Parts: sequence; structure tokens; C-alpha cells
Amino acid sequence: MLKCTRCGRTYPETFRLRCDCGGTLLVERGYYDFFGSILPYLDMRRYLSFLPIGGNYLPPAVPSITPTTSLQIGSAFGLFKLEYLQPSGSFKDRGTFVTVAKLMEGGINEVVIDSSGNAALSMALYSLPAGIRVHAFVSYDAMQEKLSLLQRLGAIVHFVDGDRMEVHERAVEFAEREGVTYVSHWFNPYFLEGTKTAAFEAYEQVGVPDYVLAPIGSGTLFLGLWKGFKELEKMGEITRLPVFVAVQASGYESLCERSKLSNPLADGIAIPEPPRREEMEKVLGETGGTCVSVGEPETRGALSWLRRVGFLVEPTSATVLAAMWNLVERGEIPDGSKVLLPLTGSGLKLTQGI
Amino acid sequence: MLKCTRCGRTYPETFRLRCDCGGTLLVERGYYDFFGSILPYLDMRRYLSFLPIGGNYLPPAVPSITPTTSLQIGSAFGLFKLEYLQPSGSFKDRGTFVTVAKLMEGGINEVVIDSSGNAALSMALYSLPAGIRVHAFVSYDAMQEKLSLLQRLGAIVHFVDGDRMEVHERAVEFAEREGVTYVSHWFNPYFLEGTKTAAFEAYEQVGVPDYVLAPIGSGTLFLGLWKGFKELEKMGEITRLPVFVAVQASGYESLCERSKLSNPLADGIAIPEPPRREEMEKVLGETGGTCVSVGEPETRGALSWLRRVGFLVEPTSATVLAAMWNLVERGEIPDGSKVLLPLTGSGLKLTQGI
Repeated sequence: MLKCTRCGRTYPETFRLRCDCGGTLLVERGYYDFFGSILPYLDMRRYLSFLPIGGNYLPPAVPSITPTTSLQIGSAFGLFKLEYLQPSGSFKDRGTFVTVAKLMEGGINEVVIDSSGNAALSMALYSLPAGIRVHAFVSYDAMQEKLSLLQRLGAIVHFVDGDRMEVHERAVEFAEREGVTYVSHWFNPYFLEGTKTAAFEAYEQVGVPDYVLAPIGSGTLFLGLWKGFKELEKMGEITRLPVFVAVQASGYESLCERSKLSNPLADGIAIPEPPRREEMEKVLGETGGTCVSVGEPETRGALSWLRRVGFLVEPTSATVLAAMWNLVERGEIPDGSKVLLPLTGSGLKLTQGI
Repeated sequence: MLKCTRCGRTYPETFRLRCDCGGTLLVERGYYDFFGSILPYLDMRRYLSFLPIGGNYLPPAVPSITPTTSLQIGSAFGLFKLEYLQPSGSFKDRGTFVTVAKLMEGGINEVVIDSSGNAALSMALYSLPAGIRVHAFVSYDAMQEKLSLLQRLGAIVHFVDGDRMEVHERAVEFAEREGVTYVSHWFNPYFLEGTKTAAFEAYEQVGVPDYVLAPIGSGTLFLGLWKGFKELEKMGEITRLPVFVAVQASGYESLCERSKLSNPLADGIAIPEPPRREEMEKVLGETGGTCVSVGEPETRGALSWLRRVGFLVEPTSATVLAAMWNLVERGEIPDGSKVLLPLTGSGLKLTQGI
């Protein structure tokens, strides 16, 4: 069932973004035996038993299990999870895979999405075989290469002259006016069901990390990772949660204090008012976590370090490493800690450099 | 040990491209228990026991296990293996991973490679953390986006005014003149050790396919897949090999009859004289396989079909689907057959379209 994070009201598992009270929803189900429920696939279908989809329609471009590889950072360990090795080039495919399966169950064939680029790219790619028509609302400032791909994937692109929040509002207006289903990952509870599988994988690969550092725009990866580890805890598989650290871009903070200087490189997380903010605060409280804000120079430095190690990612993805450097330097991460660093988006498409 | 495919002479496992007689080399080792030797990783390290590397240096960007997903094609099944979901955007990373580990074992820190783009990109990416200097020989005609990435990865790019064979000759000359190690995947036996892991994965994912259709330029994926299945047979794990079908681009055939019209889209396999041609002929003979040549219109049609299914690949990758259509139409693939179709290179970097 779907359960409201604010008033607790429940709904059946159809495609729905919010509670009637306005609160955001989470999928709630009981799972019992983690290893006993894993299916013998070597891709995301491995975790199908934990996903709220019937399986009548699964998108052909199944997301992969991404490698997790450890490198020493100061006297701690960064466990880099290569979440960008997915069909559309970002972790979003995990959420989109579940979302599109769910849309097909509900017979929905036209949707509206707003995005800085990756979420729309992912939705456009997965909607093609499903025959879903995609209206993508993006800012004129979105990266040229992402827009070019988006159009090649047949999305109907609506340009908005404004920032990320403005893009969001125009998309909502359009959806209401035209009676088209709005599928924003900002709200969509099924999106988090997809991203939670990254936690299951990480657990199989490296056990429970001491820390999880996730970039936060709308929080879909952060909350998905939290939900995944939380379900492992409920299944009795683990006894403690990692400490969750929110990584944000300067100037767009929703959890850290708002900076005056802004970080234009982290386009994927330039979301100053995410609807799931309260849920994220709760996770920081529950796990004893904190928030780190990352500026442009550190992002640039981290991006270049990552490239030199062989991780070709986009700037938003580099913020988590910059945040880890910051925490290590401030002595806030004890020696020998294992820190999960999901790298979210591919740098392959940025052929024009940054 | 390394064993010459022509005269049978053996060598120790150091970095070496050819036998003194000029023949190509293969790594030969005895393996016994497939499932008993698999390591508990969910990435390419899963098959480390089958790789001729000591493990003192492993590149951080470990290749992923790529999803394999089945779709009906006519009355047979295409098992699409998403080999493009790798750190540099192509299957080459499997071969490069082993090669770079081997170069590091040998203390080699400067290399020459010739490539239509992907092999050089892969080598440049993996060489960065290893501190290996890369001279990449490419044609002026190489795809602009690949060249731009290559330069961003710090490779020293040498442009050659000529076709793929000319590029190869200039690279060899440079290597000899400057005394720099030539690492061409055309010869390199360690490269095939990497690509053979794609067969191990496919076997775990879908068992033994009835057919394997691989694009052939120099044949590193084709021969790697064959070697992987062959080792599974030697281990007593499987009792029959799949039928291997060589897929080539019109105008550049080395195994099929040479066409007059050429296919300019399949830049990755425009290699009319691969040094391992005899080995490939042997595989076709041993498995009862054949060769299919694919022209530009079919490549374009297959590329567009793949995109509509959610597989965003580059044109060379589409040739295997075009070849399957051709064989199905000619009735050469029995109903219900399982046909492995590795999709080799990512379309993400082709932001300017084709």
C-alpha cells in the first residue's frame, strides 16, 4: 500500500503522487527474508520481489548492478558506487524502471515531467518501448548535450525561461490544464522503490557502510538509499543504519544553511525547495547525520580527481567526493570508516567539456 | 602461459603481443570448477580466478556485469547484452582492465594504441590512474565526440590521414621508432582474457545461447566470447558451444565476401585485414557458423529499432540486430532459438546525432 508520510492515510498501490492532505507518500510492504527473496538475476531484476510491480510489463532496458569499488580517502575509505553505468547514463533509470512498469499497469500513456535533464532523459528512453508520450519541461539553461539527446528520444520538450522551481511550476500547471499525468520523481513514491535497490546492491557488495553521502536535489537517491537500508533493518538483516549525510550545492541548499555564492556546476541538484525536505530531515535526525554544502571550486577539483581515477562523471556527481574531503579534513569521519559515495551521472554525454 | 596459435610455441605470461614466428598468442591455463571459482563480487572481479593477473594492481573503474535481456525477434529470441554500460562506454573496458593490470605488473608506463575511437578511449581512461602515458593513433575521420573525449582524458592524439589500416601502420612505425610498447587489442592476448568474461556472465544469466552474433572488426569480442564458452566446455560445465556468427560491415569484410558498397556507419569494425582472421575462420568452422555482412540502410534501421526499445547505442552496435533480422528472414535461425546479441558501444556520447 501507499502511506502518507504526514497524516498516515493509506491508499492502494495505483499510480498516485500525493495524499489528499498534500503529504508525500511511501510504499509500505512487509518483507522478511532478504537473501531468500533475491532472484537469480545479475541485474536489477535480482530485487523484483521487493518491488511493487506485477511484472506483466517490464521495460527491456533493465538497469544494471553497478560496481562498488573502494579507494582510500585520507585515512578513511570511499566506496564509489558507479551508479552512472545505466541505460540513460544516470541512477534515475532505477526509479524510472519501476515508474514505467507502474504507469503501464495503470494504462497511462501520456505524462509530464520536469527535470534538469537526467530524469527527463531517463523517462524519455523508458517511455519509448512502452508507447508513453513524454512532455519534458526543462530550463533554457539545461546542458545542450542533454537537450539534444532528449529531442532525439522523441520527448516533446517545453522550454521554460526560469530556474528549476519555475520549471516545476510550469510543468504542474500544464499537467492540470491538459489533464495529463504528472510523474515528477520529486513526489512519485514508486521512484524511491527503484532507487532503494542501490542500497540492496551496496549491502551485498560491501556490507553496511558507516556513512552514506548522497547528493540532494529532490532527494530521490538519498531517500531511496535510506529506504533500502531501513528495509534491510526491518528484515532483521542489519542492526544499524549508516549515518546519512546530505550533500548539497552552494546557493541551492534546502537542508544546510543557504550560501550566498552559488555552484552553477551542480545543475542536477539545484533544487532549493524539495517537497520531501521534512523526510530528509528526519533521516538526518534518525541516523545522526549532517549536511554539507559544496561550492564550485571543490566540485571542479573533485570532478578532476574522479576523472584521473577513471570515473568519467558529470559535475553534480563530484559533489559527494568534495563533501567527503571536507568531512575528513574536519575530522568528522573516523579513521578507517567506510563511506558510500554513489556517482550519479555519466560524463560521456558531456562531449563539449564543462 | 602464452601459446602461439600458429606454431604452438609457449612463453611466460609477461606483456607480449606476438610469437617470434609472427603468430598471434592466446593465454592458456587450466581451469576446473566454474561455479566453485566464482568470487563473491557483483562486478567483473567475480571472474578474477580466471584472469592471468596477480591482483597487485587492479584499475579502480572495475567493469560492470552487464544486463542481458530477452526480446522476441521473428520467431526467435534476441538476448541483448548491454555491453555498452561500462566506464568508458564500450565493452573494450573488459579487455583494457586486464591489459592495464598486466602493463603495471611489467612496469610499462608508456604505450601506443591505434583505434577508431573506443579502444583508445578505454585505454586513455584506464591509463590515467595507472600513470601510463598513451599515444593514440586515430584517423581524421574518427567521430568528433570520441576525439574530444580522448583529448579530455589526456591522451596524446596522433592524427593520421588515411583509413583504419593506415592508422595501424603509422602506430606500429611510431612504436618501433620510439621504442614505446605497442598495445593494440588486435594482437594483445590479455585483451581477450577480459572479453571472455562476457561469456561467463551470459552463461550465468541465460545458459548457453544457441547462437552468438558478434560484430567483427579485429575480432576481440568475438574471440573473447568464443574463448569464454570454450573454457566453460573444457571445465565440463557445458557440452556444446553456441554457433558463432561473424557480423561485418559492408565494404570492410575480412570473412564474408567483400561488398562493393561500403557501410560508413559501422566505424568500429571498418577493419578489412584483422591479424586474427584465421582464428576466427577456425571458430566459424568449429561451431558451424557463418558470416553476415551488413550495409548502411539495415544498420540505420536496426539502430532506430534499438533506440525505440531503450537501447541507446552507437551505429556499429546495431549491426548484430540487422544480421539477426537477415538470418531470421532467410530461415537460417530455427524458431525459438536463443541468440546472444552483445551491444558494444554507448550512444550517449553521440550528442550530435548520426
